[in-house]
Amino acid sequence: MSSLALDAEALYAELLRGVRPLLTPDTRLVGVVSGGQWLAQRLQGDLKLPGQAGAISSAMHRDDYAKRGLSASGQTALPFDIDGADILLLDDVLYTGRTVRAVVNELFDYGRPARVRLAVLVDRGGRQLPVAAEYAAARVALPAAQSLRLAREADGRFSFGIDPGR
Amino acid sequence: MSSLALDAEALYAELLRGVRPLLTPDTRLVGVVSGGQWLAQRLQGDLKLPGQAGAISSAMHRDDYAKRGLSASGQTALPFDIDGADILLLDDVLYTGRTVRAVVNELFDYGRPARVRLAVLVDRGGRQLPVAAEYAAARVALPAAQSLRLAREADGRFSFGIDPGR
Repeated sequence: MSSLALDAEALYAELLRGVRPLLTPDTRLVGVVSGGQWLAQRLQGDLKLPGQAGAISSAMHRDDYAKRGLSASGQTALPFDIDGADILLLDDVLYTGRTVRAVVNELFDYGRPARVRLAVLVDRGGRQLPVAAEYAAARVALPAAQSLRLAREADGRFSFGIDPGR
Repeated sequence: MSSLALDAEALYAELLRGVRPLLTPDTRLVGVVSGGQWLAQRLQGDLKLPGQAGAISSAMHRDDYAKRGLSASGQTALPFDIDGADILLLDDVLYTGRTVRAVVNELFDYGRPARVRLAVLVDRGGRQLPVAAEYAAARVALPAAQSLRLAREADGRFSFGIDPGR
């Protein structure tokens, strides 16, 4: 389905609406590097939350670490205490669940959160681990060969890079 | 709600029906010690699956390990290769999700499964991690003070021990 068009800006507006009722006064946003980090940063501003959103990298805990290695794309930066925290993880795409497992384990390296929920722009199905999002702005089924990844334009706007695969 | 009655035998019959469509020829049952292990063993027989169900303990990976320590109730025993396996985890009760995180990490200590799904007798809500079951025979809301735990009678039949808390 090479004509699939996902309007990332429209989905972001949906996410902004969907995330609002999930917030408590103690909720901290933490975005998964790199797409989720962009989402968390922008939500932090649009929701007028004080302080900075956190960023978390899956690189250290991925089960295919040996194959992928460490990417230079970004590192974990959590500018608040994780112990007892109410964390809302943000990611662009939920797929196999392996990234979520990795970043939850990374979070636990920093402390023991009271709660961790997940909100995503797109849930594309294809789960390989018993992971679920509290909120997804869209749910779509995509062929396994197709990759889907958030991109950020020079002006800060979002788009989806869709690689139809071979 | 101290009068809550959950008929564990009726729920087990429901679980047996619900699990059947989840099975592929490669699916391996792995039960979480101890309630899930009993379920996996009984399903293995009732579904006429060859070999033995696996057992997995959350003790080594619980985030409250320091408080709980190792229990003597049972250890991980996986009588098949985890690399590339299609695992169906069984547990009696899905609650915070912390046990599921722990046993998935324990599984990954033994290999890299192709897929891990979760089926439970009861999903009681109250999630603290982004974890979900593929199948739950029942979904009920229970007060946090109330504990719910599968018991196995001398004749092998199941019942629920419900401790109404203080």
